[in-house]
Amino acid sequence: MKPVVVRNIKRADANAVGILGGLGVSSVHEAAGRIGLMKPYMRPIWPGAGIAGPAVTVLAQPGDNWMIHVAVEQCQKGDVLVVACTTDNTDGMFGDLLATSLMARGVRGLVIDAGCRDVKSLKEMGFPVWSRAISAKGTVKATLGSVNVPVVCAGALVNPGDVIVADDDGVVVIPAKDAADVAQKGRKRVADEAGKREKLAAGVLGLDIYNMREPLAKAGLTYVDNPEDA
Amino acid sequence: MKPVVVRNIKRADANAVGILGGLGVSSVHEAAGRIGLMKPYMRPIWPGAGIAGPAVTVLAQPGDNWMIHVAVEQCQKGDVLVVACTTDNTDGMFGDLLATSLMARGVRGLVIDAGCRDVKSLKEMGFPVWSRAISAKGTVKATLGSVNVPVVCAGALVNPGDVIVADDDGVVVIPAKDAADVAQKGRKRVADEAGKREKLAAGVLGLDIYNMREPLAKAGLTYVDNPEDA
Amino acid sequence: MKPVVVRNIKRADANAVGILGGLGVSSVHEAAGRIGLMKPYMRPIWPGAGIAGPAVTVLAQPGDNWMIHVAVEQCQKGDVLVVACTTDNTDGMFGDLLATSLMARGVRGLVIDAGCRDVKSLKEMGFPVWSRAISAKGTVKATLGSVNVPVVCAGALVNPGDVIVADDDGVVVIPAKDAADVAQKGRKRVADEAGKREKLAAGVLGLDIYNMREPLAKAGLTYVDNPEDA
Amino acid sequence: MKPVVVRNIKRADANAVGILGGLGVSSVHEAAGRIGLMKPYMRPIWPGAGIAGPAVTVLAQPGDNWMIHVAVEQCQKGDVLVVACTTDNTDGMFGDLLATSLMARGVRGLVIDAGCRDVKSLKEMGFPVWSRAISAKGTVKATLGSVNVPVVCAGALVNPGDVIVADDDGVVVIPAKDAADVAQKGRKRVADEAGKREKLAAGVLGLDIYNMREPLAKAGLTYVDNPEDA
Amino acid sequence: MKPVVVRNIKRADANAVGILGGLGVSSVHEAAGRIGLMKPYMRPIWPGAGIAGPAVTVLAQPGDNWMIHVAVEQCQKGDVLVVACTTDNTDGMFGDLLATSLMARGVRGLVIDAGCRDVKSLKEMGFPVWSRAISAKGTVKATLGSVNVPVVCAGALVNPGDVIVADDDGVVVIPAKDAADVAQKGRKRVADEAGKREKLAAGVLGLDIYNMREPLAKAGLTYVDNPEDA
Amino acid sequence: MKPVVVRNIKRADANAVGILGGLGVSSVHEAAGRIGLMKPYMRPIWPGAGIAGPAVTVLAQPGDNWMIHVAVEQCQKGDVLVVACTTDNTDGMFGDLLATSLMARGVRGLVIDAGCRDVKSLKEMGFPVWSRAISAKGTVKATLGSVNVPVVCAGALVNPGDVIVADDDGVVVIPAKDAADVAQKGRKRVADEAGKREKLAAGVLGLDIYNMREPLAKAGLTYVDNPEDA
Repeated sequence: MKPVVVRNIKRADANAVGILGGLGVSSVHEAAGRIGLMKPYMRPIWPGAGIAGPAVTVLAQPGDNWMIHVAVEQCQKGDVLVVACTTDNTDGMFGDLLATSLMARGVRGLVIDAGCRDVKSLKEMGFPVWSRAISAKGTVKATLGSVNVPVVCAGALVNPGDVIVADDDGVVVIPAKDAADVAQKGRKRVADEAGKREKLAAGVLGLDIYNMREPLAKAGLTYVDNPEDA
Repeated sequence: MKPVVVRNIKRADANAVGILGGLGVSSVHEAAGRIGLMKPYMRPIWPGAGIAGPAVTVLAQPGDNWMIHVAVEQCQKGDVLVVACTTDNTDGMFGDLLATSLMARGVRGLVIDAGCRDVKSLKEMGFPVWSRAISAKGTVKATLGSVNVPVVCAGALVNPGDVIVADDDGVVVIPAKDAADVAQKGRKRVADEAGKREKLAAGVLGLDIYNMREPLAKAGLTYVDNPEDA
Repeated sequence: MKPVVVRNIKRADANAVGILGGLGVSSVHEAAGRIGLMKPYMRPIWPGAGIAGPAVTVLAQPGDNWMIHVAVEQCQKGDVLVVACTTDNTDGMFGDLLATSLMARGVRGLVIDAGCRDVKSLKEMGFPVWSRAISAKGTVKATLGSVNVPVVCAGALVNPGDVIVADDDGVVVIPAKDAADVAQKGRKRVADEAGKREKLAAGVLGLDIYNMREPLAKAGLTYVDNPEDA
Repeated sequence: MKPVVVRNIKRADANAVGILGGLGVSSVHEAAGRIGLMKPYMRPIWPGAGIAGPAVTVLAQPGDNWMIHVAVEQCQKGDVLVVACTTDNTDGMFGDLLATSLMARGVRGLVIDAGCRDVKSLKEMGFPVWSRAISAKGTVKATLGSVNVPVVCAGALVNPGDVIVADDDGVVVIPAKDAADVAQKGRKRVADEAGKREKLAAGVLGLDIYNMREPLAKAGLTYVDNPEDA
Repeated sequence: MKPVVVRNIKRADANAVGILGGLGVSSVHEAAGRIGLMKPYMRPIWPGAGIAGPAVTVLAQPGDNWMIHVAVEQCQKGDVLVVACTTDNTDGMFGDLLATSLMARGVRGLVIDAGCRDVKSLKEMGFPVWSRAISAKGTVKATLGSVNVPVVCAGALVNPGDVIVADDDGVVVIPAKDAADVAQKGRKRVADEAGKREKLAAGVLGLDIYNMREPLAKAGLTYVDNPEDA
Repeated sequence: MKPVVVRNIKRADANAVGILGGLGVSSVHEAAGRIGLMKPYMRPIWPGAGIAGPAVTVLAQPGDNWMIHVAVEQCQKGDVLVVACTTDNTDGMFGDLLATSLMARGVRGLVIDAGCRDVKSLKEMGFPVWSRAISAKGTVKATLGSVNVPVVCAGALVNPGDVIVADDDGVVVIPAKDAADVAQKGRKRVADEAGKREKLAAGVLGLDIYNMREPLAKAGLTYVDNPEDA
């Protein structure tokens, strides 16, 4: 790996980003065909935030946040910073000073497959972070990594410019080229769900709404009245 | 395992259920003789809820929530739905649509040894869930499991109709036949604790309230004044 | 290990304790040279608390909280109780009765490398706890351990009287003899950061504030305009 | 839980036990309908052993092996000792002295949801153990549990007398009443596999042996010649 | 994700594959610039094997090995089958029947981010597998995935045709286009190490061979004679 | 933490070291009063080795093995090198070149709370290693740590010169000052066990050898003949 910073990346269409952010992680993940989700160990450091934006990516070394400092300069208004690490690490690579700098550039949030610190301040500042750990463990600035190269973050491939959607349900990645298509499918999906929600609230069973009774019977499901017949 | 749905189960006595819910998980677990607790990885998706109810059980396949849809029909007002999985899995098997359906039937909450999604909505709806993970990972509806058979959920055996008590301390299972007895013991225990709490708040030591000094000495505990004498 | 209780321990200087508590975990950890941090699995059971105090230490057996009862008597106003365990254990060794007793003595909080229960009551009481798990699992009072001996808690060595600082970022231990020195360094560090924060908020890059451009170039970092040149 | 030792248990049919042991864990698990498997963290302490026998069960406390000593007396020739623990624990509850005692009684092996020690000696003695950990951590003999009650061991329900089958693939539990039926199904399964193995070795594809091409097409699988068409 | 099977993939150069296999995982990983390594939970099911080959990739669903059956047909002599899963799963998706089929086609081994069973047979057959778990847990054949699409396996991106090198140290992935270059660098690296090994065996210190004394002093390392001076 | 190398350390008495090595980890741990054991995730990279020696300690940074190179020079014949890390890390900090260097100096083995690589070569060389992981992940040489300072390794405090005993059961640490005393107690313990082993092999029960029947009855253990009486 030659350490490199790529200056120009092709960001996903801003309109699609906006729609995807409105849909939220679970709907987007379904609309995308159930792929692109980061592992569930990635959790928000404070609840309630929901963001979407094109990814600026960082590949960092364990215990070393030098490349995050480098990456700040490559961020634009509306971006989401995504930090992967060459090995599993929970050190607190990110805190309120870096967040101040990112907020000054209009960055919407951070997704980091490592630790985060100053969580109380970050919450007060309203800067959202999804991380694998909360840790005060300090880091060094000694070894190079890269910025804006493809990375694997929490089990998901992220190319620079891909759409990151993050909320209380986790983090999902949509390739930039698929953003508009997934946004459209997601909208349709959410609209469809509204009708179903109404029926379910009225007591109609999903078994009937989704016509499951016949396939269940075909698959061999048996109903018995009493435990001893099971 | 023949896939089966058992329609009639014997639910624990409603009066005992009510008492157990009022006592809370920690007191009930103690009153039961310190058994029946699910593993501590089972956590509420939002804090503050406390429920109790007879269990309707589901045995699901990893990444497949078909049987949860089947189980909804078997739920009655006041029940708690308990979902076990044939293997460790964190997929988001449950979301706000299923919760809408369960709420329409008067179900009190969900305990699921897998993942849950739409956590923000579920909190707004006031539907409590205890799960091993939060994950947007979508599931399929392809393979049968069973409803209302005995299951092992998060390390605890749950028979259909057993009492589930869940709050911020976790989830405990009380066999239906023991519910009244445990409820009575739990009440006595909580009453006893009130007096102790008052004494402790006044500065009396547990060492003296519980008469521990003599058994400690018998067991060989030594007091020394200085570290170098240790 | 001979089970022993040490009565007289040398507590860290109260003034230094006060300053360290004001600085918070992350700043103190940096000021100490990035050592003494407990592992990040130690989390507050409710957010927002921040405490500092000299440690009263307990070495407990798995599933047994007898020695915590013994330790209460050794606690003074302002202390922090630190409980280590001879093996990995998540049982709920501590609950609201013990907290009532500690609060009556003026203890500031608990750090326990095991489980904690009654979390809702503890939050209402305002008693802060950092633990590795929340669990209602009851414990016995059968086997001796020690009080006020050196312990390893969540990966960190704690000598009785050392300063414990704990907040939303985790828990750090400062040896009593280093407390004043670390307090002074931490103050200077926080003062220095104020100026940097202002600059960063104004959009100045950390790359320039910290003079990183030259060392990055020397280390071999390359900037390219386009992905295909990476 | 009242601490109790049950003296008379109904052991599974010896003939069925013999057949199940010959089939091995994976075939037995399939024949049983894919249930009853312990979690995969249960591993043999030395490779190559394969056993089957009726379970004598123990419910132990963390860090306490008193009840294993009690259980030895309840074991008969051909039994498998199964130790569950009231909470997750890796302490070395079992070593070569207990193994010597079990071997003297003709016990075939141990399955323990905790730690094991003296692994080198146990291998030399030829006594097989499946455990969740290897650990020298010593235990106490202070708190009661039970012998020959139903237990949950590594996620599987074990009733006294159930058949335990264990080999390099893990550990599976077959209810005593199902032993003969599962044995018969397993035999048929293994016989069927012999023919398939021959065909597969000759290069015939599973796709054709199992007639998968049509269901795959129906489910929507598409074949394309080149990556860019995917 | 549209389920798809890609028939024609561009496999890495056979000559480079051969060299990389000879170098082994650790040398190849270093020669590649310390990237491409799968997470260390991927372990060989039996020790001593070392393989290299172009990847045929599978994206499977949890608890479902249907797509592995589909993938067999796409494998050629010398390939390595790489199975990723859409979510963390340890089920035994692969056993000796599938291995028989793969061996009939000349496949060199399997890398699977899930479970494997029949480990004793696989060892006897000499078929090497690297997996995250050993588990007898049976799987279904119900839901589609894809074959020969890019996958993330154990944290590493694998494109179809990339070189997989696997031995007792783990599994590394080299992009097909980089294979020849990494092979050359790896050869040089191993040659360089031979000379160093000789010197080290003769007692010359790495400190001197690698000229570390000056940079250590510059970085601020201090030598003291006694502990009290530290 | 000021980075420092301490040149002169007080090594434990060689005679005691020899005895402790002969006793093995489990006996030594018991003789020491059941303390000083490293966590059970520390496993030998190849089975069968058993060593003992005074510790030379290293505190390393995650992903950085610079200080191991520094430590080699401080090792003497018979020492055991112990590497702790400032944060959880599994990178392959140690391989066959470093082992060659240590063997040239007569070092008996390595205990490392991180990863190890070249495991096949290390086994062929006969150099024993206990580690938390096997990983080819390469490391940098960029940040200082310390040599021969007190460290916490896998949960155990290790002072330079303390006795490390390691075998298939794990790793235990005995403070240098206690070595002779523990050695003596361990010898007695092993001698006592010989007689017990003989009796147990002859079928005498531990219940009788250890006189457990009365304390069990006093503690409240009940024997019943049939499950329904439990």
